[in-house]
Amino acid sequence: MKCVSCKDEYGTADAGTCRECYEEASETEEELKREIEELKSKVNFLRFWTPLDSRPHHYHRSITPCFTDVLLVAFDEDSGKPVTDSVPVAANKAVLASRSPVFRAMLETEMEESLSGTIKLSDVSYDALRAFVHYLYTAEACLDDEMACDLLVLADKYEVKHLKTYCEKYMISKLNWESSLISYSFAHQHNANNLLDASLSLILDNMEKVSKLGEYQELVEKDPRLLVEIYEAYLSKQVNTAAVATPAAVVHESKVTRRIF
Amino acid sequence: MKCVSCKDEYGTADAGTCRECYEEASETEEELKREIEELKSKVNFLRFWTPLDSRPHHYHRSITPCFTDVLLVAFDEDSGKPVTDSVPVAANKAVLASRSPVFRAMLETEMEESLSGTIKLSDVSYDALRAFVHYLYTAEACLDDEMACDLLVLADKYEVKHLKTYCEKYMISKLNWESSLISYSFAHQHNANNLLDASLSLILDNMEKVSKLGEYQELVEKDPRLLVEIYEAYLSKQVNTAAVATPAAVVHESKVTRRIF
Repeated sequence: MKCVSCKDEYGTADAGTCRECYEEASETEEELKREIEELKSKVNFLRFWTPLDSRPHHYHRSITPCFTDVLLVAFDEDSGKPVTDSVPVAANKAVLASRSPVFRAMLETEMEESLSGTIKLSDVSYDALRAFVHYLYTAEACLDDEMACDLLVLADKYEVKHLKTYCEKYMISKLNWESSLISYSFAHQHNANNLLDASLSLILDNMEKVSKLGEYQELVEKDPRLLVEIYEAYLSKQVNTAAVATPAAVVHESKVTRRIF
Repeated sequence: MKCVSCKDEYGTADAGTCRECYEEASETEEELKREIEELKSKVNFLRFWTPLDSRPHHYHRSITPCFTDVLLVAFDEDSGKPVTDSVPVAANKAVLASRSPVFRAMLETEMEESLSGTIKLSDVSYDALRAFVHYLYTAEACLDDEMACDLLVLADKYEVKHLKTYCEKYMISKLNWESSLISYSFAHQHNANNLLDASLSLILDNMEKVSKLGEYQELVEKDPRLLVEIYEAYLSKQVNTAAVATPAAVVHESKVTRRIF
């Protein structure tokens, strides 16, 4: 027979679908592709032009007005001053409030931020602040390891779930057993449950190697409760594996017994 | 053989794909579905809460502030007053400017609308104005025949391409030969090229019946140039059909000839 898709000859053993199912599947694929095109065009429509778009270089002033009514400032808590080399990032209250319930609460009530028109964000670099505002406008960000961490922290603090998931996905794609313990601790601190699960799974698969990492010793000193949680999960996995393995072993043994006698 | 998809038995004549292609296609389908989920979540993130959302009934005042800084008024050009039973619809300049280049130009420059904070929209019902603003915030609209027309007119006037395409799709899905002439004329007036093409195609397929419609006579009086355009397309189609038909007829004839001798 000739495959209607790849046009190669194949035998009965390598047969896949009947023609009707192939045609249905092709139609489904076309429909899904159309849906994707429609959604992409919707995203493009809903995507906001960002106040940062109009600045070719970040220390140039915006050339065109862009309906901004609030300033975000990267603030250094220790010195009580804005972070060095940073300028305020202009944004629109409606955009901030629409994307983050924390900003919404700040701006809707008569809080300091609402009255002064300035929001101070502490413990954030100027670049991360710019990327954060850009994401709130466009749902887009260029991530590297550092930026993914910085944005996840902001996403957690300002409750921007979509951004948190986006950063978690990036960080999960970069996970390996050597970084799994740091990631677990980071995920724990910033309520990143997807990253937490992925890190834990890697740790449990490499428990012995992980227990010899320098970061493991640091955690013993700094936050031993986290290690207790990990060991509890490890124990639970061991018990479950044993429970699953036992009946199979019994079956296997009985088969062997039967074969001998 | 047994189809791996529907599990029914089938013979060689009804064979579709080989197993490898089936598995690849299944993976592709899963990937497309994941992409759709991601895009949906992006749309949900980018979708704006609308100032209308917080009003359970349109003549109730907004309960929570919603960062609006401009009012849109459905205006009756004849009386020089707002349309009866309408109240101003509050919106955010940044949202309007982001969705429509026409609003952007109005609001960025020192035009009347920018200074007064009020935009007057003529020849529009209050319901259509509300639906228009809602769409600009959310990319969503509930259409019926009347609303699709009203929103398409607004989309054309304020250059909101995404909404225009959305209305055109709805109107194309409702097209029939009896409405094709009115649709063609409407599409012509409001630069709706997709609807124009779809209407024209239906008209050309039903030329004789369409030429007996009451709307045809009306068009003869009001806008005969439109009918000329239609007849030109009809003539062109006739010529093309004849050109395509001729070689086929020749082939057919030669086959018949060969079979006889």
